[in-house]
Amino acid sequence: MDIAAYMEQLGRNAREASAKVAASSTATRNAALLAARDALDGARAALAEANARDMARGRENNLDAPLLDRLELTPARIDTMLEGLGQVAALPDPVGSITDLNTRPSGIQVGKMRVPLGVIGIIYESRPNVTVEAASLCLKSGNATILRGGSEALASNTAIAACLAEGLASAGLPTTAVQVLETPDRAAVGHLIGMPDYVDVIVPRGGKGLIERISRDARVPVIKHLDGICHVYIDEGADLDMAFNIAVNAKTHRYGTCNTMETLLVADAEAAAILPRLALAYADKGVELRGCERTRGVLTDIRAAAESDWSEEYLAPVLAIKVVDGLDEAIVHINRYSSQHTDSIVTRDHGRAMRFLREVDSSSVMINASTRFADGFEYGLGAEIGISTDKLHARGPVGLEGLTSQKYVVFGEGQIRS
Amino acid sequence: MDIAAYMEQLGRNAREASAKVAASSTATRNAALLAARDALDGARAALAEANARDMARGRENNLDAPLLDRLELTPARIDTMLEGLGQVAALPDPVGSITDLNTRPSGIQVGKMRVPLGVIGIIYESRPNVTVEAASLCLKSGNATILRGGSEALASNTAIAACLAEGLASAGLPTTAVQVLETPDRAAVGHLIGMPDYVDVIVPRGGKGLIERISRDARVPVIKHLDGICHVYIDEGADLDMAFNIAVNAKTHRYGTCNTMETLLVADAEAAAILPRLALAYADKGVELRGCERTRGVLTDIRAAAESDWSEEYLAPVLAIKVVDGLDEAIVHINRYSSQHTDSIVTRDHGRAMRFLREVDSSSVMINASTRFADGFEYGLGAEIGISTDKLHARGPVGLEGLTSQKYVVFGEGQIRS
Repeated sequence: MDIAAYMEQLGRNAREASAKVAASSTATRNAALLAARDALDGARAALAEANARDMARGRENNLDAPLLDRLELTPARIDTMLEGLGQVAALPDPVGSITDLNTRPSGIQVGKMRVPLGVIGIIYESRPNVTVEAASLCLKSGNATILRGGSEALASNTAIAACLAEGLASAGLPTTAVQVLETPDRAAVGHLIGMPDYVDVIVPRGGKGLIERISRDARVPVIKHLDGICHVYIDEGADLDMAFNIAVNAKTHRYGTCNTMETLLVADAEAAAILPRLALAYADKGVELRGCERTRGVLTDIRAAAESDWSEEYLAPVLAIKVVDGLDEAIVHINRYSSQHTDSIVTRDHGRAMRFLREVDSSSVMINASTRFADGFEYGLGAEIGISTDKLHARGPVGLEGLTSQKYVVFGEGQIRS
Repeated sequence: MDIAAYMEQLGRNAREASAKVAASSTATRNAALLAARDALDGARAALAEANARDMARGRENNLDAPLLDRLELTPARIDTMLEGLGQVAALPDPVGSITDLNTRPSGIQVGKMRVPLGVIGIIYESRPNVTVEAASLCLKSGNATILRGGSEALASNTAIAACLAEGLASAGLPTTAVQVLETPDRAAVGHLIGMPDYVDVIVPRGGKGLIERISRDARVPVIKHLDGICHVYIDEGADLDMAFNIAVNAKTHRYGTCNTMETLLVADAEAAAILPRLALAYADKGVELRGCERTRGVLTDIRAAAESDWSEEYLAPVLAIKVVDGLDEAIVHINRYSSQHTDSIVTRDHGRAMRFLREVDSSSVMINASTRFADGFEYGLGAEIGISTDKLHARGPVGLEGLTSQKYVVFGEGQIRS
């Protein structure tokens, strides 16, 4: 197989299909999503069989247990995929809205129309349900997609792709609007991220290593986050019950998510009152604490935090704690060490709350709420394709709108420039 | 001079200054702009002297006449710079607005706050007035700037930079919020576009060669357009007087601008009626015509267009003309050859007008108006830092808003995730 020629053909197909998807009606795209749902529902046996082959090969290749778990397509997971397709079909269509229409002194009316980006490349690992999630969000927002899943999920993804194609065809859309790479060749990724003529944006989903490699080598814009090093700052005079609840929830609700708190900052004035109480709760949950010198003045038996702790995403029951003089030091610490994902202040002081909101340079900044809320569903986007810590285009949880762009539209009656 | 160390220091300065500028009030930033205006006004003699040195060196180096013209800082051009500073100070401040605030089922309120991007690198050629324009737009939108002008304008730019620094200092802002590179070393550009830790976005302004090089090599996002290959399509049944006026204006109002029409598309049904009349007008203005076969069936004495004519930005009194069957062929031609800058339809048909609007994938799409309107001032942005044909982030004329981003803000009252 000539991988370069194969990828070029996929790119051409996608670009051609993208014009047709962009010009299609909301009803047509919804019909394709619902037909794909029905096709998947009718193909449960084929999906199970394909997935069993992936699982068997995975076991042969000694994939570790968490990877095998993510790879498995249980009946319940298939149900969730079907529900997801119905939910995406029910979301409002962002495409086509014209906003900010103003009449200019020349007489022309100028506005902005929301339009699809074109072709979106998705690169992800193991979980085959991402194939359905990502394809459905891209299709709903009027885009064509090229999906590259993990090679360990190839049979499952190919079976899913056949159902998506059935849905597209039954709605009269080109089946090339959603293309799943049918090769395990790793060189395919290099081609996918290096075809700016055919691909408008890449959304990588997976481990930090994958995303770093893609960001470094891509010649196409990438929507991504690398790390979730999130902070909670407990301000002087904060409601300590509220601070306790938020600090416990932000750390212990789930350990492996990118919006989990990894460093807790505490104003010096509150350290003696709140830290021992928190330490008990964390001990109860088995969370290991690593503290700065002042923290260890209060919690004498915890391990000293190293400089590297302030920039580590543990994704585990470990928490770094630093006592700071107050808001200024907290903001400086966050803007230096945060991954610009999500940071929260617990405070009663309006002025300091608003300064934190303005001055912390992260994709989500919160007052008196758990960082765990940074999520497309919790924010009301309906669904999310990922979270972006980039500053340009889409920042924070990325829903359908992040998969679109706005172009200027001008309505004239024959105006010429004088 | 160790250029890598110099650029690293500039980057650090800019990042540090950007936090202070972002946290400053609108009034402070406006005061800095007005103080810079006064400083420039008071430094007219020094500016003239520095510019005379650049001009003398330019003549010694045999710079061509248009370049020398762009380099010259006449008193009238200085007046225009001063007016520009006043206008930018008077524009509304985009920073800090919170929009789309919604209460979610969890009780948190989620919205978006408009914030500066951080540090903006501007790379441009010859014209020293760009230094003031670009720096003022970036400062107004709360960003720090690093400016790299043409080496031929080094003395002028350095003199202007001193005035900008005076303005910043008098308003209590760090003078490092606007830094002009004081080295002609070309290696500086390579460093500037390769420091993602210190620079958030690059805006190149200049010839296509410069912009292509920068886009290819940059490790920082670039806001740019390469070409302006703009189309006017005269639809079947169009008001032919309107079509005539728009086609003449779009081509002949100015030849060297990126929103000038380079290819005229005419529906077959109107070709015989409109082309001879247009040909006379173009001949009158000295515009050379190059036509497809069908065009030459009507205008028998014009040169045949080669395939390469459809993708050429002439920036000169030359026009390519193609007769098409109708709207479908026009859209296919535009989406294939247009540089996605600005394309316009002249039509009386509502359905075809709206199809053109939706299906032409360009940064500005117009109905019954001259492509020459694609411009920040004409669109009401107040000013523009450039025009973007990229799809992500800013598309079309880029004003203050394109120099900002939106982050999510969450207002809670102690909510935790359950």
